[in-house]
Amino acid sequence: MNIVLLGSGNVATHLAKALKAKGEHVVQVYSPNLVNAKLLAGRIAAEAVNDLNAVKTDADLYIISVKDDAIESIAAGLKKVNGLVVHTSGTTDIQVLSAQVKHAGVFYPLQTFSKIKEVVFDRIPLCIEATDAGRLEILRQLAAKLSEQVYELGGEKRKVLHLAAVFACNFPNHLYALANQVLQQNGLDFEIIRPLIAETADKVMTNLPENVQTGPAVRNDESTINKHLSMLKDKPALQEIYQTLSNSIKLMPK
Amino acid sequence: MNIVLLGSGNVATHLAKALKAKGEHVVQVYSPNLVNAKLLAGRIAAEAVNDLNAVKTDADLYIISVKDDAIESIAAGLKKVNGLVVHTSGTTDIQVLSAQVKHAGVFYPLQTFSKIKEVVFDRIPLCIEATDAGRLEILRQLAAKLSEQVYELGGEKRKVLHLAAVFACNFPNHLYALANQVLQQNGLDFEIIRPLIAETADKVMTNLPENVQTGPAVRNDESTINKHLSMLKDKPALQEIYQTLSNSIKLMPK
Repeated sequence: MNIVLLGSGNVATHLAKALKAKGEHVVQVYSPNLVNAKLLAGRIAAEAVNDLNAVKTDADLYIISVKDDAIESIAAGLKKVNGLVVHTSGTTDIQVLSAQVKHAGVFYPLQTFSKIKEVVFDRIPLCIEATDAGRLEILRQLAAKLSEQVYELGGEKRKVLHLAAVFACNFPNHLYALANQVLQQNGLDFEIIRPLIAETADKVMTNLPENVQTGPAVRNDESTINKHLSMLKDKPALQEIYQTLSNSIKLMPK
Repeated sequence: MNIVLLGSGNVATHLAKALKAKGEHVVQVYSPNLVNAKLLAGRIAAEAVNDLNAVKTDADLYIISVKDDAIESIAAGLKKVNGLVVHTSGTTDIQVLSAQVKHAGVFYPLQTFSKIKEVVFDRIPLCIEATDAGRLEILRQLAAKLSEQVYELGGEKRKVLHLAAVFACNFPNHLYALANQVLQQNGLDFEIIRPLIAETADKVMTNLPENVQTGPAVRNDESTINKHLSMLKDKPALQEIYQTLSNSIKLMPK
């Protein structure tokens, strides 16, 4: 299968490397920024282009992996292609593509990607969707090459998943950052708290989070909660977060 | 060293097992509830007692591992002992003990403990404090047997650490639980999001969280944020959490 990759960000980069590792042919990398296109294309021996008119029209699969609000305009530049065009977005409707191209699909990897961190693609849940059963089968086969976890999901469920991912990934990471802020301002290193973060995630690999909640809020330990709030008296933003999340923990059914 | 353990909860249970595994002699387990005392004592071949007057007075070390607000009254029951009396609390001053007993200390394991999940004690940061240098050395040697990470920390820094732990552990776990709520209500299983949780924690083992933040808020992707807020329109509590944390991410220095 000949694949054209449109995008050069975090998702595109990790996807390109995973595709190459599985022997798939990414023939072109498109990015409006030629430097970025060349950087990624160079790593997977593909051609770099920065003009949508220079994109090959005879590829089998076009993967649009760009910011959500740029998907539509790139799809509009692929009107002539016969291959399957997919995006990798959690929140964008398949119709954004199918209004522009002949065959549309979604290829959404549910993972957090940073260029500075390698990921094991085999364990990334891949959520697929397509406008017809034949194309869905193509995506299923490709997804099964890349990962052990392939989910066929409609757009509504994919959006729910993306929302849940913000709660399960983006927000926890931000809370790690706030913890680091508190530590640094008191001359303590983030290293000291890493085992706790690892164990907190590890616990929910085999348990449901509501069954392993610990801390002052779940114990209704108002004395500790009040001590913490008073330690944060010069940080009203952190105080608000502490209060909001503690209240939410208390309201959780046990 | 002969050790008396006062408490039978999550921390006491994991500590008892770790002490036994390293060949330390826990000779007694005290709990006001005899059933609980016997349950834990039976696992480590110790005597179970539910009366403070029955606690041995000639042990070397007394570890009080109970809810914070119960520490003082238990310490008051140990006035006669000559051994070192420590608590395992992140937020309780050493003075709560030293006002009651001859030799006081703190032995605070920075970890989240649930009885249903085993932990590798070797990698748990142990924070120690004592009223004199000799006792501190005793704690340091014991801590070094149990863990590779021993920190000598005064009460103020220990409290900061405990506060940071709420942000790095208790709150993220609650956010996992909210993610699960969103998934379940839409017929999706928590399993699908576990690889994302694992990777989110794994990323900060070698990076600082502020350098690997992903998601709509850090991209200032208002369109996705608004879609998510509208998906939560029937859940004002989740909407508030989403809004508060997204705003906080946007305000984070990059």
